[in-house]
Amino acid sequence: MKWLKAAAEEILSGAKKAISELDMNQVEKFIQIILDSKERKIFVVGVGRSGFVGRAFALRLMNLGFNVYFLGETITPAAGKEDLIIAISGSGTTKFALTASSTAKEIGAKVIVVTSYPQSPLGDLADLIVSIGGRTKLGWPKEENYLARQLLGERETLSPLGSIFENNCMVLLDSLVVELMHRLGKTEEELRKLHATIE
Amino acid sequence: MKWLKAAAEEILSGAKKAISELDMNQVEKFIQIILDSKERKIFVVGVGRSGFVGRAFALRLMNLGFNVYFLGETITPAAGKEDLIIAISGSGTTKFALTASSTAKEIGAKVIVVTSYPQSPLGDLADLIVSIGGRTKLGWPKEENYLARQLLGERETLSPLGSIFENNCMVLLDSLVVELMHRLGKTEEELRKLHATIE
Amino acid sequence: MKWLKAAAEEILSGAKKAISELDMNQVEKFIQIILDSKERKIFVVGVGRSGFVGRAFALRLMNLGFNVYFLGETITPAAGKEDLIIAISGSGTTKFALTASSTAKEIGAKVIVVTSYPQSPLGDLADLIVSIGGRTKLGWPKEENYLARQLLGERETLSPLGSIFENNCMVLLDSLVVELMHRLGKTEEELRKLHATIE
Amino acid sequence: MKWLKAAAEEILSGAKKAISELDMNQVEKFIQIILDSKERKIFVVGVGRSGFVGRAFALRLMNLGFNVYFLGETITPAAGKEDLIIAISGSGTTKFALTASSTAKEIGAKVIVVTSYPQSPLGDLADLIVSIGGRTKLGWPKEENYLARQLLGERETLSPLGSIFENNCMVLLDSLVVELMHRLGKTEEELRKLHATIE
Repeated sequence: MKWLKAAAEEILSGAKKAISELDMNQVEKFIQIILDSKERKIFVVGVGRSGFVGRAFALRLMNLGFNVYFLGETITPAAGKEDLIIAISGSGTTKFALTASSTAKEIGAKVIVVTSYPQSPLGDLADLIVSIGGRTKLGWPKEENYLARQLLGERETLSPLGSIFENNCMVLLDSLVVELMHRLGKTEEELRKLHATIE
Repeated sequence: MKWLKAAAEEILSGAKKAISELDMNQVEKFIQIILDSKERKIFVVGVGRSGFVGRAFALRLMNLGFNVYFLGETITPAAGKEDLIIAISGSGTTKFALTASSTAKEIGAKVIVVTSYPQSPLGDLADLIVSIGGRTKLGWPKEENYLARQLLGERETLSPLGSIFENNCMVLLDSLVVELMHRLGKTEEELRKLHATIE
Repeated sequence: MKWLKAAAEEILSGAKKAISELDMNQVEKFIQIILDSKERKIFVVGVGRSGFVGRAFALRLMNLGFNVYFLGETITPAAGKEDLIIAISGSGTTKFALTASSTAKEIGAKVIVVTSYPQSPLGDLADLIVSIGGRTKLGWPKEENYLARQLLGERETLSPLGSIFENNCMVLLDSLVVELMHRLGKTEEELRKLHATIE
Repeated sequence: MKWLKAAAEEILSGAKKAISELDMNQVEKFIQIILDSKERKIFVVGVGRSGFVGRAFALRLMNLGFNVYFLGETITPAAGKEDLIIAISGSGTTKFALTASSTAKEIGAKVIVVTSYPQSPLGDLADLIVSIGGRTKLGWPKEENYLARQLLGERETLSPLGSIFENNCMVLLDSLVVELMHRLGKTEEELRKLHATIE
């Protein structure tokens, strides 16, 4: 189980580093825009594993009382110029996230992009970029010096493709949910009351 | 293209027959319960192809302004005793539809079942059954006499498994949407305004 | 229930007309390409209600033994130059269907488009267009003369947005499945054996 | 940003603890069963956020070359007695995961349950339980002593509902993927070749 343990260590120390390196100005703006969206619709978009992290976040925004949707699911209402799109894409290039965000901009909606590649097509059209470190399927966004290097050499991380980004993103967004709970004065019981009762 | 043409003829004449044989008292009650749900949540549930027909219906209920969800998708809020579950199952036995409806009943929500098998586990717990003829994956619910018999003999319909039920159901629910539009005084433009703008 | 009955009549007579007006050369080519895909992957793509019709078709292709996927779901493997994309879009303009088909073309895969608008961005990049009449959310593709005109005047059909296209498409694709069954010599029992046992 | 930081710290230290407390005999059996499933089908099931973690894992199993499906999505083939179900449920009680696993057992398939509650309905029917610590929506499975206690007192964790379980599960399963890569001798490039090319 050598590799499992090393990979867990890599993921957890990597996430710790990514959280510590967050630009808290970006995160504060992210929080403010979400808090300002109580009367608006929030649409989350992401493809593949970034999409699953996005859905997990969307579900918690629902628990918090927001009017939130995941793009591409059955119930996706009209987005208008008052609304908010949150796109999650490690590489900042995922096509569906890009065309959806681009359409959102045309409509006049605000676009927040959570990514490891601020200099990317998605970053270029964002109203707000929230940068989160972590190797994506394109490799590392910048120089990093990781446990993996020593263990492997030829490969940059133990975790394949975008796994590091996706875990970092999950930790970031779940921690953001706790911050939002406290800013909104919500208790766990209040979140639970809005949680699915049929599953 | 003999079989394509014969199958289309079978589907369309079958759907015509199924619509003409509807119990309009059931349908009227179905409409009234939906119209009474303007302030409540509507949850649609179905598995496989019945689920796709259910999602198509849920999307139109959204276009009509209802607060509607498809069970199992990301954004599925808490169901309460005031709410409505619409289960679609040709055979009336599909497990997920059954456990979801059963939980809904425990919560005190109302359950409407659209099925070809009123005498089924789902039928047994329904507050309202909407029967729609059509062969399901269990075969025909009752004696029927169809074009398919003459063409095939050994098989009961040209269309395999639940295809007949699913087509009949699609026509029923899409026609119901038109009836709802008129009862609500809604125009196509009003539906369009609530339609997804990002896709 | 005047509107429900009139809408059902409109949908069914419209679908009958659409099937009778199919270009059977297109349909024959569609069938041949699918039959030639036994060793390849087939990807179905569609958004919203067209997507639900596409999923219903994909599920039957699975029942027939094809190696088929619905784009955007969890298990979507790599598409290669040998593979086939089937895009369903009434208007021929749906963005996600368009970018997915465009990527497929770059990869070298074959693209079949099922649409009411052959002269559209999706039509332009298709290797094969399968035209199916029926009003989409853009209105009618060409002059049509329907029951709806006499009943409504101001609106072109009773059925809102793309409902007519989606129903026509469902009947076409389900009839095609029957044609494929016979060409492949498959029985309903063989389809049933490949059908989900956990639902 | 006090709460965000404290929550991230809680999630990461909690995951570290959960990984260190894994029963490696259980994990080794889990790995062996997956490695023995090269010729079989693997079905992953989970509801809500556990389901998103399950989908992320299923996607990586696909990258590794397994024949894997997520229950409830369009392409879900027949499960047989040779096949494997992996159910993810923090509380071990989620209804859809339970009825699906129960049907799987009737069919004769093997069921692995990843949970914080080994003594639960899902645990009771499992062929193999993989226990992973972490508070679920039912609260903590056993006595735990966390940062959250000092910070909050009245609430047991900063992270609401099942967030701790879901993060722990994500780290476990993503680390397991790395272990599987090495046991199978797969490189990241080989995983990439099986990754979706249209997204």
